[in-house]
Amino acid sequence: MSKPYVLGIDIGGTNTVFGIVDARGHVVASDSIKTRKHSNFDDYIDELHTEVIRLLKSNDVENEIQGIGIGAPNANYYTGEIQNAPNLPWGNGILPLAEKVSMAFNGTPVAVTNDANAAALGEMTYGAARGMKDFIMITLGTGVGSGIVVNGQLVYGHDGFAGELGHVVMKRNNGRVCGCGRTGCLEAYCSATGVARTAREFLEIRTDPSTLRNLEIENITSKDVYDAAVAGDKLAKEIFEYTGKILGEAFADMVAFSSPQAIVLFGGLAKSGDLLLRPLRESFEKSLFPIFRGKTKIILSELKESDAAVLGASALGWEAKFRVETPAVFSTPAPAAAPAPAAPAAPEAPEA
Amino acid sequence: MSKPYVLGIDIGGTNTVFGIVDARGHVVASDSIKTRKHSNFDDYIDELHTEVIRLLKSNDVENEIQGIGIGAPNANYYTGEIQNAPNLPWGNGILPLAEKVSMAFNGTPVAVTNDANAAALGEMTYGAARGMKDFIMITLGTGVGSGIVVNGQLVYGHDGFAGELGHVVMKRNNGRVCGCGRTGCLEAYCSATGVARTAREFLEIRTDPSTLRNLEIENITSKDVYDAAVAGDKLAKEIFEYTGKILGEAFADMVAFSSPQAIVLFGGLAKSGDLLLRPLRESFEKSLFPIFRGKTKIILSELKESDAAVLGASALGWEAKFRVETPAVFSTPAPAAAPAPAAPAAPEAPEA
Repeated sequence: MSKPYVLGIDIGGTNTVFGIVDARGHVVASDSIKTRKHSNFDDYIDELHTEVIRLLKSNDVENEIQGIGIGAPNANYYTGEIQNAPNLPWGNGILPLAEKVSMAFNGTPVAVTNDANAAALGEMTYGAARGMKDFIMITLGTGVGSGIVVNGQLVYGHDGFAGELGHVVMKRNNGRVCGCGRTGCLEAYCSATGVARTAREFLEIRTDPSTLRNLEIENITSKDVYDAAVAGDKLAKEIFEYTGKILGEAFADMVAFSSPQAIVLFGGLAKSGDLLLRPLRESFEKSLFPIFRGKTKIILSELKESDAAVLGASALGWEAKFRVETPAVFSTPAPAAAPAPAAPAAPEAPEA
Repeated sequence: MSKPYVLGIDIGGTNTVFGIVDARGHVVASDSIKTRKHSNFDDYIDELHTEVIRLLKSNDVENEIQGIGIGAPNANYYTGEIQNAPNLPWGNGILPLAEKVSMAFNGTPVAVTNDANAAALGEMTYGAARGMKDFIMITLGTGVGSGIVVNGQLVYGHDGFAGELGHVVMKRNNGRVCGCGRTGCLEAYCSATGVARTAREFLEIRTDPSTLRNLEIENITSKDVYDAAVAGDKLAKEIFEYTGKILGEAFADMVAFSSPQAIVLFGGLAKSGDLLLRPLRESFEKSLFPIFRGKTKIILSELKESDAAVLGASALGWEAKFRVETPAVFSTPAPAAAPAPAAPAAPEAPEA
């Protein structure tokens, strides 16, 4: 085979998924390893390399990989490093991800970015944002992530960390404590966990009946709220209205910044359909600065959820292939194999 | 003379200032006309052309102008038009500014943008943001304007109107009514008029003494508040603290978007010195998402206020010269002079 392929790797807190992707955005094959199996980063890279090679061989494309793209929490496009990612098992320091992976794969060009940026690239390359030069990707999962595209380019900012729209402040007084240590962040309201918090708040403050009262209040999830709302529960529906209203207000401020053609939603909560979208769109249009009204679409991702992370990362793999000269792409050849020792190895020096 | 020059034109609600600018950002000569003198747009363009030509001739550079940049309220970079500018005297419709000016100047390339974007270009080309690829320009005048630079390019958005950061919402409950018809906008608090409103609010609600109480409350300006604060008035100082706190919170959200190297302040209120800057920087650092802390500078414009508008527009003039092939640059040759009629013109057809 001589068709070109790239490798997309998505490093999550639990699983690392990797896939072989062709130029049309078709995931030819994919597999995964457990992210947390190795507490040593080099051991993790070794296993990743071994398992990727196995997948490449079994698909007969071992020598066809042109670039590698990686999405990972707190991964910095400019430096190729993971910087202080508390949800990964390799400590709170700096991990030279791109360099290590490129070295393992004999100098194949590698580019990295955070997961939400990778999702935006995937959507622009293969999904709902094809042909758009200005859009914002919002991932509504456990947290709220974002990837921003301006003039056809991802916005990385001067330090590589731009696009933390889950942490714009929506309540400046008595806001909810956020995982980031501040209060009132969008993420504290409009993520899956935010929806569950809203449910707990509503159930405590209010007295009207709800099927959600049959559940253990501490364990209520956004899925429970969704199921109850679908079944017609009034309080559950109001939780989605509350969520959509805040999200719409936040989106209106984002439009004042970059005036995107669309805001693309991805992630579990984005699948709530009109329960979320109707109040969201209503609040959004109402909140917009007048000249922006009626111009920016709120749409859903067109990528299959199981493929999206790998596709997003793979889009960066193509970028790595074609922009190997930029500082953000790392191409590090493996060191030459050490020559065989001419004499028996000296015994190890005793530890100092 | 054969040095290249560009023309920078700043169209304000009262005056239209224009200047001849050399490649080093030196305003060789400038002059102005009254924006409101002509209620007909074509008459205005005629006078502008006449006066510009007079300035060019008196400086012996009539044939050296390589490009024309124009900053104007609601001017759209993509279309070259002024769209619905309520503060200009030519009605609320669409004015083909770039096309008319290029035609008047025999096809010289023209590019237009709004005033705050022009200011950002000026700062990037000649001022405090030289060498920066990611920064945000905030103009604190009668209103709050903004120009955003990402990856070395101005952010225009899909419709040309991006960068309305004066209209992000800072108070979602009981916010002040803003000129845009919405409530709680940054501009309603942190512009010169916002500061005056804060003064009136404080004086009404509070009972502590202040030299501001000696003034007619309805006519208090931000300059009065500044003078009182400089003289040590406690209430006046607190007005600046209040303003700086809100501005710092707004800036922190902007950093979550584009992670700029700096936020550059321009305009009357920016000259309040530490009265504004100290509470602003304090609130900003405190409000930032942790990974952004200590990275983004808040700095003042380095352009002389009298030159800034013309310099900003002139920077766009260079862009017009060098990017004459892009859709945003208009180069419209004047129609050839009509040939002398060979026979008396036929009488006009009667109206249908």
